[in-house]
Amino acid sequence: MGGRQTDETLETKEIDIRSLSSSRGHDLPYIHKVGVPPKQNLFDEIKATVKETLFSDDPLRPFKDQSRSRKFVLGVQAVFPILEWGRHYNLTKFKGDLISGITIASLCIPQDIGYSKLANLGPQYGLYSSFVPPLIYALMGSSRDIAIGPVAVVSLLLGTLLQNEIDPVKHAVEYQKLAFTATFFAGITQASLGILRLGFLIDFLSHAAVVGFMGGAAITIALQQLKGFLGIRKFTKKSDIVSVMKSVLSSAHHGWNWQTIVIASSFLMFLLFAKYIGKKNKKFFWVPAIAPLISVIVSTFFVYITHAEKKGVQIVKHIEKGINPSSLDDIYFTGDYLLKGIKIGVVAGTVALTEAVAIGRTFAAMKDYQLDGNKEMVALGTMNVIGSMTSCYVATGSFSRSAVNYMAGCQTAVSNIVMSFIVFMTLQFITPLFEYTPNAILASIIMSAVIGLIDYEAVILIWKIDKFDFVACMGAFFGVVFGSVEIGLLIAVSISFAKILLQVTRPRTAVLGRIPRTNVYRNIQQYPEATKVPGLLIFRIDSAIYFSNSNYIRERALRWLTDEEDRLKEAGLPKIQYLIIEMSPVTDIDTSGIHALEELYKSLQKRDVQLILANPGRVLIDKLHASSFVSSIGQDKIFLTVADAVMTCSPKVAEQV
Amino acid sequence: MGGRQTDETLETKEIDIRSLSSSRGHDLPYIHKVGVPPKQNLFDEIKATVKETLFSDDPLRPFKDQSRSRKFVLGVQAVFPILEWGRHYNLTKFKGDLISGITIASLCIPQDIGYSKLANLGPQYGLYSSFVPPLIYALMGSSRDIAIGPVAVVSLLLGTLLQNEIDPVKHAVEYQKLAFTATFFAGITQASLGILRLGFLIDFLSHAAVVGFMGGAAITIALQQLKGFLGIRKFTKKSDIVSVMKSVLSSAHHGWNWQTIVIASSFLMFLLFAKYIGKKNKKFFWVPAIAPLISVIVSTFFVYITHAEKKGVQIVKHIEKGINPSSLDDIYFTGDYLLKGIKIGVVAGTVALTEAVAIGRTFAAMKDYQLDGNKEMVALGTMNVIGSMTSCYVATGSFSRSAVNYMAGCQTAVSNIVMSFIVFMTLQFITPLFEYTPNAILASIIMSAVIGLIDYEAVILIWKIDKFDFVACMGAFFGVVFGSVEIGLLIAVSISFAKILLQVTRPRTAVLGRIPRTNVYRNIQQYPEATKVPGLLIFRIDSAIYFSNSNYIRERALRWLTDEEDRLKEAGLPKIQYLIIEMSPVTDIDTSGIHALEELYKSLQKRDVQLILANPGRVLIDKLHASSFVSSIGQDKIFLTVADAVMTCSPKVAEQV
Repeated sequence: MGGRQTDETLETKEIDIRSLSSSRGHDLPYIHKVGVPPKQNLFDEIKATVKETLFSDDPLRPFKDQSRSRKFVLGVQAVFPILEWGRHYNLTKFKGDLISGITIASLCIPQDIGYSKLANLGPQYGLYSSFVPPLIYALMGSSRDIAIGPVAVVSLLLGTLLQNEIDPVKHAVEYQKLAFTATFFAGITQASLGILRLGFLIDFLSHAAVVGFMGGAAITIALQQLKGFLGIRKFTKKSDIVSVMKSVLSSAHHGWNWQTIVIASSFLMFLLFAKYIGKKNKKFFWVPAIAPLISVIVSTFFVYITHAEKKGVQIVKHIEKGINPSSLDDIYFTGDYLLKGIKIGVVAGTVALTEAVAIGRTFAAMKDYQLDGNKEMVALGTMNVIGSMTSCYVATGSFSRSAVNYMAGCQTAVSNIVMSFIVFMTLQFITPLFEYTPNAILASIIMSAVIGLIDYEAVILIWKIDKFDFVACMGAFFGVVFGSVEIGLLIAVSISFAKILLQVTRPRTAVLGRIPRTNVYRNIQQYPEATKVPGLLIFRIDSAIYFSNSNYIRERALRWLTDEEDRLKEAGLPKIQYLIIEMSPVTDIDTSGIHALEELYKSLQKRDVQLILANPGRVLIDKLHASSFVSSIGQDKIFLTVADAVMTCSPKVAEQV
Repeated sequence: MGGRQTDETLETKEIDIRSLSSSRGHDLPYIHKVGVPPKQNLFDEIKATVKETLFSDDPLRPFKDQSRSRKFVLGVQAVFPILEWGRHYNLTKFKGDLISGITIASLCIPQDIGYSKLANLGPQYGLYSSFVPPLIYALMGSSRDIAIGPVAVVSLLLGTLLQNEIDPVKHAVEYQKLAFTATFFAGITQASLGILRLGFLIDFLSHAAVVGFMGGAAITIALQQLKGFLGIRKFTKKSDIVSVMKSVLSSAHHGWNWQTIVIASSFLMFLLFAKYIGKKNKKFFWVPAIAPLISVIVSTFFVYITHAEKKGVQIVKHIEKGINPSSLDDIYFTGDYLLKGIKIGVVAGTVALTEAVAIGRTFAAMKDYQLDGNKEMVALGTMNVIGSMTSCYVATGSFSRSAVNYMAGCQTAVSNIVMSFIVFMTLQFITPLFEYTPNAILASIIMSAVIGLIDYEAVILIWKIDKFDFVACMGAFFGVVFGSVEIGLLIAVSISFAKILLQVTRPRTAVLGRIPRTNVYRNIQQYPEATKVPGLLIFRIDSAIYFSNSNYIRERALRWLTDEEDRLKEAGLPKIQYLIIEMSPVTDIDTSGIHALEELYKSLQKRDVQLILANPGRVLIDKLHASSFVSSIGQDKIFLTVADAVMTCSPKVAEQV
């Protein structure tokens, strides 16, 4: 559309404001006709639907009206956003990124070593996963605040799923290979969802279910840490609370190591105190961020000089030196394990994606920049695919580290590059120093980290807002705690789907009344002062009418009518003569819905009640015309507003009374 | 609530009609506050939700305020409705039932013999299934028009599913046993859905998908009849159109039997002509109803005297005499076949239920009586459970026979008893006479019967109303025709679900404008004459805001805003200062939805745009208060109507310009 035409349209379309208030005065009973929208052709209609479903974010908008070479540049920039924002990069921004990069690096190194244990992998694999994936993400990702690396929940999930297939101790090599295979397919899953623009599918995991799942996983992870915390050597492989507590209590007499407990609990207190300081005063956000590294250094030094490892304090012992070796040949592309790898990869990839996208969205909203969900998925997927070839396991956005990153004043994804560089230096030069790090410290660090995943404030809010959501949340939580991560996840997904199905089968309906001193008709349950109009029943359907709910709606309408007539009969008042259906919320109808309306119309005719429709929407009026339902009930039975309908019908009731 | 109290409420609540029209005159800018509904307690809330979901039809209403003995009588009557309507039964009604019962019996006997072939069972089993199940249904069912017995589609489905497991020729005994097992579990499925009040689950099969599936099944069944029609002995076991046509054409030279073809095609023409007469003049509805029986009698007599069976015309040969033997011992309650029986039973039972419920509803709407869906399911389930113990296979409501029943003037389920009695007499005395009935006649009868299942008028209507429904319809149709019944069914179910998911992920949204000379704001795409208000963007969300669509809605709102601002900038007009969201259609919100609103609010603040909500509903305002979203945007930002919001905001825009 050219500029000139727009101007003209505007002139005719936009009204003078002054006419707005004055028009109220001479508001004569003017009844506006319900318009039949201009017919769209079929191809346009289908195109619009597909576009709205898959390209709702309009990703091609910047490409419009551009030269071919410009389109190419834009295309490359779309895949590697760093080329775009990199051009405006400057020293001030780098200062912020440097500080935040160093901060998250100091937080991630001890966490990585601990988390790789949750995945039943050697300590170096956590560090590997904090080296390559953040680099790839920095090139392709568009979030400025996310901190990439291994995270607790995904590590636990991956570890649980993998050890269901292979014993990580007896068949360590196969286990490791399957881990890389799963990581590869996790990346493929994520990237495909993005490329096929099916990213909206992850929206099907409801927020409440995710909160419950995360909380449950945090408890499970904390319980697993009791092994390192108490210095127990023989520990159950199950993750449910009953098995773990049994295992802990049965080894109380001879399995616990008091030296370990002393170290672990004193440092846990230190870490929690650091967390408390950080929370109390936002200025000291760096205190909890570097506390873990300090704990590691102090405790390692302490063990080294006292030789506490000879008193039964377990230490890391061996940690590979040097950067990621290639693992391309380790991935199973054939054989039995291929299918298992795909299965585990799809699950772990989806959960990792849910976490990363939630983090990305949260921080994008806080700084008000747009995030292209599908592009993000491609970036995360590519990063995991490349990661799987360089000895990394599934990496994603870490909530705790991203928050630290944000508070430390990160400006762009360069903070991830800084972190990656520090991890690289650590791998090259410092890893041997971690030899004497006690496992108890790692347990304390993980415990203090996962506490943040238990979002009790969100749970309280969920309880207040939506009881069904609360059930979903608790279901996922108890599923993880008393069952396993898989059971919890399954419960979360099932309840999410049940909610969707319930929503479409049992839509809300309401009887409307007139709000005093206005011409507005509203739900009489919400506005008890609203009054009914004699002889009329005004009924609102709060949903599209589809096959899944059409019968319910028809029956519900007849039930409202029967109830109302019983009441009127008892009170000796005149019977209902008009059923006015307020159609504003009815956004769509399908063939089953039209059938239901036709049946309702027939039933009403038998009862001598006229059917009136108020404000059918654009799609609706189109379809009601196409099915010739309008001509069967009569064009004069359709009104623009309930007020118009009442004004027309009400006098007729009075005549007949 | 007592009578007196109701009266009082009415007096205060119902307004005088005369005040209605006059109030328009002094319609001063009165702005009504958005009410916060009275708080419900938690238990009531959950009770209401459960009641609405599972007891939407209020089945216990008649039991209210009744003595204990009366409740018992009502309870027995609820299980056996015949006890209720039986008391008002009289001779006039019986006349109608007698005539219609005889008519449907004459139609069902030849159909039964043919349909049992589709299920790969002996001809007597079809008759058995028209004897016991109709009797049970007459005692327990509440539809007055449905005609019970074997039907074409279910017979075909059952036959296909069973022969996937066991060869019906080589292992005839096991096949028969599995058929009874499947029938038993089909009944159990149907009854459980009814008892657990989960009947609404069958609403998830969309009308369009059912139309497509039925049409495809009709084609498949007709194609199968080519075997009998052409007198082919060697015929493919597959049911897809390609295999069948290959099989037919490859046997053209030596496999066809011309005598058979002559008999089959002449009687088919006779049957189609009878159908035509019945359709042309409703008075002659009995002509197509008795034509099949006449064909059977004439052709049997003809074959008997000409000994055409020696010329290669295949005949029924053997048909068991006597009524249903017990088959209780034939049902597999243990072993491998148990699980298979359950699986087949669940599928066949659900499809049979869908058909029966659709028929019941159609005729109930035509005569305007209420049908309790869940009670119907219990009746149909019980009938099939008892049927499975008396050598019957899955019976359900037949659409063609029910229509004949209705047109013949049936009054109650007694017409089923009459039919059942005639089938009983047939089994006892007449079956041996069917020995010489040529298979070709049965093929012609089935062909002429299934033509009615191809509902091309419905397909045209579906095309007109909803293109997505049309895709579902065609998907199911081609799935059955080119694949198999199972594939078609799978496609139908998947597309139905996809539609539900699409509905909740991508809700419609619209920009509103003011309709000239009114205070009504409507979709500017539907009403091109509607005008925008300068400085305001009015946006309507047409769906509940749930986790599945909350992100989409937030992004969509920002996209409308960006589009509008781009347009205004280009035209040099003042920018948007208020985003008014019309919330009328938003019936519910969950925690994810609240999050999305909060994020939207933050983004708008960054852009200096005020967020205004118009007419949030009862549930919504409750939850917005609970989450303290209202207090964060401010109570004064919520209006009862868009008109009120515009009236308040618009002058402020003018000031700033």
